[in-house]
Amino acid sequence: MDNTLSAIKKMEIIAREIPGVISLAQGIPCVPSDRIIRKEVIMAINNNKVDKYSLTAGAMELRNLISEKLKKEGMEYDAAREIVVVAGAIEGLTATLLSILSPGDEVIVFTPTYYSNYREIVKLAHANVVDVPLVEKSGWSLDLNLFKKRISRLTRAIIICNPNNPTGSLLRKEELLEIGELAKKRNIVLILDDVYYNILYEKNIFLLARNKQFKNNIVRIVSFSKDFALSGWRIGFLPGPEKLISKILPIHDCLVNCAPVVSQYAMMSAIRHESKIVFNTMKKYRKNKELMASLLKQLSGFLSFTVPKGTYYFFPKIFKIKNSEDFCLKLLRKKKLAVVPGSDFGPGGEGHIRLCFGKSEKEIVDGIRRLKQFLFINKF
Amino acid sequence: MDNTLSAIKKMEIIAREIPGVISLAQGIPCVPSDRIIRKEVIMAINNNKVDKYSLTAGAMELRNLISEKLKKEGMEYDAAREIVVVAGAIEGLTATLLSILSPGDEVIVFTPTYYSNYREIVKLAHANVVDVPLVEKSGWSLDLNLFKKRISRLTRAIIICNPNNPTGSLLRKEELLEIGELAKKRNIVLILDDVYYNILYEKNIFLLARNKQFKNNIVRIVSFSKDFALSGWRIGFLPGPEKLISKILPIHDCLVNCAPVVSQYAMMSAIRHESKIVFNTMKKYRKNKELMASLLKQLSGFLSFTVPKGTYYFFPKIFKIKNSEDFCLKLLRKKKLAVVPGSDFGPGGEGHIRLCFGKSEKEIVDGIRRLKQFLFINKF
Repeated sequence: MDNTLSAIKKMEIIAREIPGVISLAQGIPCVPSDRIIRKEVIMAINNNKVDKYSLTAGAMELRNLISEKLKKEGMEYDAAREIVVVAGAIEGLTATLLSILSPGDEVIVFTPTYYSNYREIVKLAHANVVDVPLVEKSGWSLDLNLFKKRISRLTRAIIICNPNNPTGSLLRKEELLEIGELAKKRNIVLILDDVYYNILYEKNIFLLARNKQFKNNIVRIVSFSKDFALSGWRIGFLPGPEKLISKILPIHDCLVNCAPVVSQYAMMSAIRHESKIVFNTMKKYRKNKELMASLLKQLSGFLSFTVPKGTYYFFPKIFKIKNSEDFCLKLLRKKKLAVVPGSDFGPGGEGHIRLCFGKSEKEIVDGIRRLKQFLFINKF
Repeated sequence: MDNTLSAIKKMEIIAREIPGVISLAQGIPCVPSDRIIRKEVIMAINNNKVDKYSLTAGAMELRNLISEKLKKEGMEYDAAREIVVVAGAIEGLTATLLSILSPGDEVIVFTPTYYSNYREIVKLAHANVVDVPLVEKSGWSLDLNLFKKRISRLTRAIIICNPNNPTGSLLRKEELLEIGELAKKRNIVLILDDVYYNILYEKNIFLLARNKQFKNNIVRIVSFSKDFALSGWRIGFLPGPEKLISKILPIHDCLVNCAPVVSQYAMMSAIRHESKIVFNTMKKYRKNKELMASLLKQLSGFLSFTVPKGTYYFFPKIFKIKNSEDFCLKLLRKKKLAVVPGSDFGPGGEGHIRLCFGKSEKEIVDGIRRLKQFLFINKF
């Protein structure tokens, strides 16, 4: 197996060794987790609740909470048989892909997206990624004809990140319904990377998973890293039909045995206080989005961008960029600003950079100032 | 992929739904984690240290501590390039095996051992387990001739659990040296499952990893679940040569991104207070071992056993047992006692049951009483 670390990770490794660096690279929320979560986790620690393994699928108490939460959101999943608590979205995604893929199988991915990580995981299963480039000029929409052409008898899964990292765009209801119909007809698993589904600046998002007729084809990957600022805790969950979950469970067992129990308690607390916490987080992200948009507008001679509908990323196109990885490395060395090269997000990402605004105001202002200086002074 | 949960896990799932059950099944320490660990973890939580991702290989501060600890134990590993902090031993083992195996490769496993888990992981990599049964009558020693015969041109790795789960036996120095020489000559990776290396009732254990000439062939899997009672925290580490660690790291990234950061702080604390904590834990386990041995002696008409040199398991042979899984399921239903069927540990395990004594005195006394009643009354 010859896997490699993504450019996001490489950037972070270099960045952390540079004093005075500002990072708008890895999607780490700048805010700490909510005080109520800490308080309740500390209670659990002091009450001897977190030292022992939980069941492989997660503590029953937590799965019941998740099942109730999903019900309120319009989705029905049985706590005992249709939910697995995982050690973060990546673990959930890997367990899911390893459970359904055989060597040589194909997985469809819409690009640009969280590409290099998806590709590395698919490679682990000795399967192949098939790209469907999104159409930039129409706001990263899906070319349905192209999509259909890329489906083959080897297609086993489609990964859909919605809202999409890094473009911040949303797929339209019609696009999602067509994907759903096709998946159902051809027995393809839809893996919904719903890591950012709480980070939305539009009022409504169409959730394919609410549609019962597609339930047997859908595994959702839900993380608590971004909306609850719990990235270090490695916690998330998968809802899916029993037929798929029962195959994922023994793989999840090989990957981590069970999700860290202390983090399971953090998730219980996050779910209990969800509306308040997400409200506060979104207030901050909304403000940061406006700030970054206004700063980027001042650079319109050098770049163009669309305002994200979800996630906490901008994905501007830099006009004169040739190689985004070179650009980002130079930017890091000369201006001590870490951002992610667009090429890391697969075909269609080259020429762009990803900027995270899940950061402090100061980091955003200083970061974009550094980018500006770099764009004004340097040839690249 | 068609993986299944081990009998250990299945037993636990059934057991947790039976009121009044006693479990001597899964290897979960009954003791809580040390108070000093909780105190230091809570400080880290309150100081905003645990919310964000660490680097993929783990926090540098922790890797430095691990490197110093290993040095004191006679092993030299570079903190930046030769150590990965993992989300428990299973994650470390899976990352290691996926990084070195190609489809069709072979992995040698000495049985009985932690077999069903090893086999499921090897299956994930589309590779095959090759068994080498240990010789029960000579205290589970290794038949070196048989071992050599089982090595083929497809052998890529040998997994060695020492002290061995479930037999509690130790490989002799000569056996380990011969394995080391062979691995070196044939370019085979030795994966040392050192989960129990702190739980020893003999004064000295021969650690192959102290021998520099084998360093390039060895990856050690070190867990903090058993000796530090941190099983729920999912934390451990791998020391290995840069050549192997650099391949393991991107797979580890696919499996969990990074080990849970809150648990990384638990590990820092555990390492800083290691001698005191392990001393206390071992005092308890030593006492429990004597207790269980004396209770099992009273059942000598029904079973035979050897006293473990390490781990917290007894692995008695039940004279009249035909199918250990049936035996254990009946024992669970009729006497509400959960133990693990020997068949779960691979060839040579059938006819035995595994009893964990990392439990409270009361559980051990009551548990063995239930076993006794079952043996006296039932035909099986």
